[in-house]
Amino acid sequence: MATPTGSHLASLRELMKSEQYKVDAFLVPTEDAHQSEYIADCDKRREWISGFTGSAGFAVVSIDKAALFTDGRYFLQASKQLDNNWTLMKQGLPGVPTWQEYLVKDLPWGSRIGLDPTLITAADARQLSNDLGAHGSQLVPIHDNLVDLAWGDARPPPPHHKVNVHPIEFSGKAHHEKLKDLQDHIKEKGAYGIVVSALDEIAWVFNLRGSDIECNPVFFSYAIITENEAILYVNPEKVTQQVQDHLGHHVTLKPYSDFFNELRQLAPVLRESKKKLITNSKTSLAVEVAVGEDNISDERSFITDAKAIKNEAELKGMRECHIRDGAALVQYFAWLEKQLKAGIQLDEVDGADRLEQFRAAQKDFVGLSFDTISSTGPNGAIIHYKPEKGECKVIDPKLIYLCDSGGQYKDGTTDVTRTLHFGEPTAYEKRCFTRVLQGHIAIDAAIFPKGTSGYLLDPFARHALWKDGLDFRHGTGHGVGSFLNVHEGPHGIGVRVAYNDTPLAAGMTVTDEPGYYEDGKFGIRIENVLVVRDAATPNNFGDRGYLGFEHVTMVPLGRKLIDVDLLSPDEKKWVNDYHAETLEKLSPLLAADQDALDWLKKETLPI
Amino acid sequence: MATPTGSHLASLRELMKSEQYKVDAFLVPTEDAHQSEYIADCDKRREWISGFTGSAGFAVVSIDKAALFTDGRYFLQASKQLDNNWTLMKQGLPGVPTWQEYLVKDLPWGSRIGLDPTLITAADARQLSNDLGAHGSQLVPIHDNLVDLAWGDARPPPPHHKVNVHPIEFSGKAHHEKLKDLQDHIKEKGAYGIVVSALDEIAWVFNLRGSDIECNPVFFSYAIITENEAILYVNPEKVTQQVQDHLGHHVTLKPYSDFFNELRQLAPVLRESKKKLITNSKTSLAVEVAVGEDNISDERSFITDAKAIKNEAELKGMRECHIRDGAALVQYFAWLEKQLKAGIQLDEVDGADRLEQFRAAQKDFVGLSFDTISSTGPNGAIIHYKPEKGECKVIDPKLIYLCDSGGQYKDGTTDVTRTLHFGEPTAYEKRCFTRVLQGHIAIDAAIFPKGTSGYLLDPFARHALWKDGLDFRHGTGHGVGSFLNVHEGPHGIGVRVAYNDTPLAAGMTVTDEPGYYEDGKFGIRIENVLVVRDAATPNNFGDRGYLGFEHVTMVPLGRKLIDVDLLSPDEKKWVNDYHAETLEKLSPLLAADQDALDWLKKETLPI
Repeated sequence: MATPTGSHLASLRELMKSEQYKVDAFLVPTEDAHQSEYIADCDKRREWISGFTGSAGFAVVSIDKAALFTDGRYFLQASKQLDNNWTLMKQGLPGVPTWQEYLVKDLPWGSRIGLDPTLITAADARQLSNDLGAHGSQLVPIHDNLVDLAWGDARPPPPHHKVNVHPIEFSGKAHHEKLKDLQDHIKEKGAYGIVVSALDEIAWVFNLRGSDIECNPVFFSYAIITENEAILYVNPEKVTQQVQDHLGHHVTLKPYSDFFNELRQLAPVLRESKKKLITNSKTSLAVEVAVGEDNISDERSFITDAKAIKNEAELKGMRECHIRDGAALVQYFAWLEKQLKAGIQLDEVDGADRLEQFRAAQKDFVGLSFDTISSTGPNGAIIHYKPEKGECKVIDPKLIYLCDSGGQYKDGTTDVTRTLHFGEPTAYEKRCFTRVLQGHIAIDAAIFPKGTSGYLLDPFARHALWKDGLDFRHGTGHGVGSFLNVHEGPHGIGVRVAYNDTPLAAGMTVTDEPGYYEDGKFGIRIENVLVVRDAATPNNFGDRGYLGFEHVTMVPLGRKLIDVDLLSPDEKKWVNDYHAETLEKLSPLLAADQDALDWLKKETLPI
Repeated sequence: MATPTGSHLASLRELMKSEQYKVDAFLVPTEDAHQSEYIADCDKRREWISGFTGSAGFAVVSIDKAALFTDGRYFLQASKQLDNNWTLMKQGLPGVPTWQEYLVKDLPWGSRIGLDPTLITAADARQLSNDLGAHGSQLVPIHDNLVDLAWGDARPPPPHHKVNVHPIEFSGKAHHEKLKDLQDHIKEKGAYGIVVSALDEIAWVFNLRGSDIECNPVFFSYAIITENEAILYVNPEKVTQQVQDHLGHHVTLKPYSDFFNELRQLAPVLRESKKKLITNSKTSLAVEVAVGEDNISDERSFITDAKAIKNEAELKGMRECHIRDGAALVQYFAWLEKQLKAGIQLDEVDGADRLEQFRAAQKDFVGLSFDTISSTGPNGAIIHYKPEKGECKVIDPKLIYLCDSGGQYKDGTTDVTRTLHFGEPTAYEKRCFTRVLQGHIAIDAAIFPKGTSGYLLDPFARHALWKDGLDFRHGTGHGVGSFLNVHEGPHGIGVRVAYNDTPLAAGMTVTDEPGYYEDGKFGIRIENVLVVRDAATPNNFGDRGYLGFEHVTMVPLGRKLIDVDLLSPDEKKWVNDYHAETLEKLSPLLAADQDALDWLKKETLPI
């Protein structure tokens, strides 16, 4: 099972020891140069050097040791995938250092620690540098990534897919208007300009979409926007005539590889103008090194805040794509139930593949928004489970089935979880499911004054579970992009400190996904995408206005698992109203699939 | 109405200008040397210099100006009470500086700003000193308080009431055991000792009570506790033989006035031992100056955290005194309703006085725990209203009556608010009341995992109000002392940042007091004291244990104001259960007052 890494490590260490670099350790983070959550194959450096394929981890290679740090979700997987060149560092267990502590305490005093400065944020690098400095060690930025040099020709080439225009019909606001807002912001701040390195921020500002990263419709690029100019750094072979026509005279195109050189040339200009270049907490150390720490003003991202508030065109797209997405899910669940009742054996991947087919048949489908979690019984309790052909389980109709999936459509992004039972659930399974459902309803039905954060709403999702001594170990909700990344900040519902700093505001999207998981037994999660909307309250104390939610996801909730006796009259009404709305909105799309229509009708009968 | 302050200011300014002090401004905070919330007459320096009697404010006297800073609760009162020597600074209004900003911006560069270092915390002084330093100004600690010198013989003497023993029957833990815990903590921290200046902390540690401050059973004192010794600094004339016998050989008694001298003598001892004296965020600048900043370790108060967790004896006392307190309130409300129905005119103070008489007749009554808020109609919307004879209103049976009051009993402290209507409330008044009641019930019935803070529970108290676009501008709850201060930290329910740093824990007391206020019309608040208790949940996810609340306050809620149609079946059951419990617990105490018993029966009928 373990991946042999001896030759990879040997090549890397040869470079580390060479006269040119002379470092005692080399750091290999998971992130790419844009701090993306999902990464392209060419950026899977940590996977190549260690053999570990999980989504979170950090590798530290020194001359005689190699350590891989990851969290509880991945202990089992990492211990299988790492060969004996590696030590697995189980983060979160008592006595196990973080990788930062390890660098300080476990490496010798006075170590030179190399890393690619594009792969770490300036803020993290500053903290690390201070900690290392106190132990006589030193962070050494190396612009040629040593893993890439060691990887050599075997490294996949960076993707060179064409960029597409995201039309005004779906974006709702022209890129030159977004640029105007940004330039007004720059003037207001008295700044020189803004540097943009997050790929979804660039895609949003320029109304462009790409396919360089699986499930995320973004393309590799940087941007520098000043008072009078907008420069988009993107590989010229990706840019079609149509994209050039779309961008027009508002935007100057330059090659991706010019970015850091141009930043370096900007340094004296900034010094002379005494104006700053605006960055944010996700900007890399490489940007700071190129342009100079003194020339930078690290601020809350104006683009992330603006992008989070969807306009009416984006909301229309979100509503419409969720109806098509719901129809595909209903087709899938109807098909799956029929197969299982007929005794046909299907594994979790068969299910996920069939669901993708139903989605792909929908208008404006582009691809999945993340890998489908199709999980039976105990696999549902693995929160980030991804079934793999040959290793996954056969779907057992006697167990709970959890399916978390989503699609990218030209008019929006979906993310939906349903938990179903195709046989007879136990009273205990029903009670757990109903507690989760009550938490889901509590968020959906919440009304709150403007200024309230998702941090403060989070307990609403848990209270019904808490009454039974139950809870779940993940956040309640995250923002969702508009035909963009399925996870989008800055807001969310949960106990992350950052969520307390961002009030929910009208036009934001956020998922509502409480759950309950029992290791080795089952997982339950009910997830809709909600839109924050102004609420029509009879009073307006404080003159602030009040907010509530509109659900855009339209899929039956899993009637069979509801313990009706546990619900209040208001909750029952909520379920029946939601099902009536779902029936009304999905029926027209299912005229050609009688099985699906029958299943929809059955599943939306009043409780 | 305004109080003449010309001569007071003249005397103060003479001292400020004298060779001995030479300061350009003198600061007069509201607090005493122990950072008490309520203060003794001899400490009402801000009131003496300005004429303003409110509970919150800050005076800055310079050679040619006098400015009084206070918040929105007191704008009207201060504008009436200040004479034309004073400028009222309305804190919170746009463009109005805080007193700290005023010192920096409105006083000349290079000002010498005097203050009594016992009246400001070391932390606040440090911040202020930095801000002033940047403007060439300087904070000048003056150990002779210049206001006291100006006040002279007219200043009331410090109180010299006797100290009483708080018996083990009520404290539940001997003072030598508490001292042992503290000394273990000192050893664990490798510290020299702890300095204690908060009066309720001292009263709690030594199991003593006093009466130096109205409504707060504390006595002026300091304490220094080291690994092997406990020194209590208290005026010898307050200490009876009984107190000496109680303290025994565990405690050394020294005069109150020796405290700062002894701290100064401790400085070289600390330097030599290389051990620190533990202080906390409320320790005064004077302590830090006396012992030296380098010899101090500012920590979260161990005593405040320990005091917050009531033991079984304290909880028994809280339960029992709340039953007696409830009986007194029922007698009062029954009497008041009878008078009003008979057309007898009573003003708000008449009501408060009669209530105090009913309380005073109860076993182990010591005094009020705060000034009674007895308010009719619009006065109920003034959140910290205190009726004054001659100025207050006659109680109008056609308007809502709000009564917030509490008593000090030898076995505990009470704090209860009820909102009643003695005529026919409007549908709107009933709806508002019922929304407040739903918030009250939501907190009372909450179940939550250990580790949850009152910050996260606060929205439960507001959600029913939010649904109608209503809210209230105060916290939901505060800790309550055990025959100690009615406001007690460190925890609470509300959006103060500090409340997010302190998880609720079994044995804590906390009030549950949501409200709704309509300026010029009415005020509604429903307040019980709750105790945090382990909750018996059917599961224990996360193995942390779950918590809930037990209400100890026993007074009917105000049946007539409940809009029953708005309540869920669970909420109705809660009201009926609460009323049944109240009837059962109070009836035995009301055998001699048939009116009260009848009123209790009527008010606790099922809804």
